Amino acid sequence: MKPSIPKGTRDFSPEEMVRRNFILQTIRTVYERYGFRQIETPAMENLSMLEGKYGEEGDKLLFRILNSGEVIDEIKAKKDNIRLSDISEKGLRYDLTVPFARYVVMHRNEITFPFRRYQMQPVWRADRPQKGRYREFYQCDADVIGSDSLLNETELVQIIADVFSKLNIGVSIKINNRKILSGIAEIIGEADKIIDITVAIDKLDKIGIDKVNEELKGKGVSDDAITKMQPLFSVKGTTDDRLNFLDNFLSASETGKKGIEEVRTLLSYLHSMSFKSDLIELDITLARGLNYYTGAIFEVKVSDARSTFTSSVLGGGRYDDLTGIFGLPDVSGVGISFGIDRIYDVMLEMNLFEQMHLNESSTKILLVNFGKKEEQYALTVLQKLRAAGVNSEIYPDAAKMKKQMSYADACKIPYVLLIGDEEMQSGKLTLKNMMSGEQNRLDVEELIKKLH
Amino acid sequence: MKPSIPKGTRDFSPEEMVRRNFILQTIRTVYERYGFRQIETPAMENLSMLEGKYGEEGDKLLFRILNSGEVIDEIKAKKDNIRLSDISEKGLRYDLTVPFARYVVMHRNEITFPFRRYQMQPVWRADRPQKGRYREFYQCDADVIGSDSLLNETELVQIIADVFSKLNIGVSIKINNRKILSGIAEIIGEADKIIDITVAIDKLDKIGIDKVNEELKGKGVSDDAITKMQPLFSVKGTTDDRLNFLDNFLSASETGKKGIEEVRTLLSYLHSMSFKSDLIELDITLARGLNYYTGAIFEVKVSDARSTFTSSVLGGGRYDDLTGIFGLPDVSGVGISFGIDRIYDVMLEMNLFEQMHLNESSTKILLVNFGKKEEQYALTVLQKLRAAGVNSEIYPDAAKMKKQMSYADACKIPYVLLIGDEEMQSGKLTLKNMMSGEQNRLDVEELIKKLH
Repeated sequence: MKPSIPKGTRDFSPEEMVRRNFILQTIRTVYERYGFRQIETPAMENLSMLEGKYGEEGDKLLFRILNSGEVIDEIKAKKDNIRLSDISEKGLRYDLTVPFARYVVMHRNEITFPFRRYQMQPVWRADRPQKGRYREFYQCDADVIGSDSLLNETELVQIIADVFSKLNIGVSIKINNRKILSGIAEIIGEADKIIDITVAIDKLDKIGIDKVNEELKGKGVSDDAITKMQPLFSVKGTTDDRLNFLDNFLSASETGKKGIEEVRTLLSYLHSMSFKSDLIELDITLARGLNYYTGAIFEVKVSDARSTFTSSVLGGGRYDDLTGIFGLPDVSGVGISFGIDRIYDVMLEMNLFEQMHLNESSTKILLVNFGKKEEQYALTVLQKLRAAGVNSEIYPDAAKMKKQMSYADACKIPYVLLIGDEEMQSGKLTLKNMMSGEQNRLDVEELIKKLH
Repeated sequence: MKPSIPKGTRDFSPEEMVRRNFILQTIRTVYERYGFRQIETPAMENLSMLEGKYGEEGDKLLFRILNSGEVIDEIKAKKDNIRLSDISEKGLRYDLTVPFARYVVMHRNEITFPFRRYQMQPVWRADRPQKGRYREFYQCDADVIGSDSLLNETELVQIIADVFSKLNIGVSIKINNRKILSGIAEIIGEADKIIDITVAIDKLDKIGIDKVNEELKGKGVSDDAITKMQPLFSVKGTTDDRLNFLDNFLSASETGKKGIEEVRTLLSYLHSMSFKSDLIELDITLARGLNYYTGAIFEVKVSDARSTFTSSVLGGGRYDDLTGIFGLPDVSGVGISFGIDRIYDVMLEMNLFEQMHLNESSTKILLVNFGKKEEQYALTVLQKLRAAGVNSEIYPDAAKMKKQMSYADACKIPYVLLIGDEEMQSGKLTLKNMMSGEQNRLDVEELIKKLH
């Protein structure tokens, strides 16, 4: 039987895990630094919780779990009346947002709001697998729910900046506000076409002005409205310049003005905390899952000269009614979600793992096994190393030196310790740096100091 | 719609996550200290990899995933000839051992043996849920594969002792060896009944000698053989006493003698590393999943006066042919698996979480929000705290003091910081310990020192 795994899924090797753990741990540390607290939800949810939450397309992409028991009997009994719901009641988590909403409603009596939660778990989608798109992948979400203070948006932006700074990736944080988008639709006289309008202008970067106008026309947006929109497409300058333009453009829309005010408050909070203003950029065309967001909208793109990636590595925003679908209305929240698979690919391309010594094993040192007598001595050294917190191992057999060295090499263990007759007599052990080839003679205390 | 989760699954709250993370992190740290390296495998495996690996009962407990696409059409087309395999090709991971074997075979050209891998991921079983038994639970496995050195067994025993010592749980590590069990079956003249014999004597603790003899008889073990076995049931004394007894009892079995020698080698390794010998105990009746193990067998039971738990919290052993099922024969391995759900329950009962301050939030301090002016000042303090590595948050609105205090209380945040007019003028901030109620006036530097 030839072993295989389902398409779109992946095994992660020790080398990959060291790097993935570094990314996850970096995000986790920053989330906790900002007072976010972790929850976990089950991989399986009842399908009634998932269906209808991700649109028609999303329902098709749910992984459904076959009921336990006599499914085949059930199928034969129902004959042509058989339906999916007869044989499947549970599905795999499709994202972390809907399970979080479900969690909040189920546990609302135990939760003290505002609830600052983070969650880092895999999700599953029966999407067609392709480069960079998997059927199982991690999401890393943080949300504040039950508070409409813009301080929450501010802290999420700070978190984004902190994480990418720790990962050493240059990024651009794009922000917008759903109320600005609503104001635009209102001002051009097409308030009811807001979804079509924002879907179209969201593509400006990719397809250019002409195609956007074409699409707007195709969706039935009037020529007059399209003409009115044109100045939006050529807005240039700093975020302040853009806000001044919008002040004017949206002066007749209360909603639009509220959106501008929210952006200004967020920026002013950031300014008062000496946030590097060149990291953040107001992008009037940014929409992202518009049906969902009601206030701030966030997106992060890599803007690092060392990277060719242009896709987004984070998304987020404010939603006013996440838990309404589960019977708890009017709970406002705001959240972000890091795309760690893309971040991994970016770091790989930028050679960051090597620079951060994340190409090494989690094991720091291998003690070579020369035979019974030396092993005995080596085991006492090994114990001291481990007691001092050094990740270390001994080769379990007295295999040929060459074999043991290539083991260390293949496992990317950075140091090897040689203890032969001479070392046992002098107490000065031979440490070999596998990278440089350099050798040193050290006693155990010096060794521990060196490896710490 | 009333929100719910599938039976046998659980949500984990922030309080539970702090504790679960502590257990997982303790195990992870020790595994890495001993040179084990992490891998992860997909939640879904092809059913052809899983079926037939866990016995008939196990196959029934697999969670099967419905194929994507037009399953209902498929069912209707196949009519009465429909089989499970027509509508389901993938299943959820049932344990970490079979996916690991599949991993080793698939990646055998990238792996340098011996391969010391650890893996900590959820598994799923469609078992009937009951107290302490879930349909989704974590396993935490470490295995060394591709080496038959008993040094590997030795290190696994050390790992077990280290983990439970760090968790502050008193345990008894029971060991046995499949070759001793084989020797016993051979000596009593019932070599072909080894499975029935070991299944029966494995129950000695629970059902007593008479019932064990009854079961043996029922399985067709001869009276003569049962009589020969009786001395085994009354072996007392130290592990050395037991080994001496076995020397005599198994003197005519080569396999049995090999088993005794393996146990002695393991004990001698442990002795040379000053391992606390009262932690370990040879239990001749210990069998655990016998079909699987070929050498050492491990089990850990809580033996702490503060706990009423008697169930095992760890199992493991050596297997000589794990990867044979996937076409790579003769790869010997040895491994252990911590039962973290049970460990959690034990620690809860023993009040260890409270003693270890794991009843607190991951957030260390809440800054009370008194209004715009004070907020501005508080935000600069907040930034300094976070920059110094203190997990901290500010209440996002100037809500009533009482509300903010009860938020800190409910979230189990151990400190609250009050910054009002007086504090802003003096630079001496008021720190309140939420546990003791004690208040201190500190400047920011003193505060950081105190909270570190």
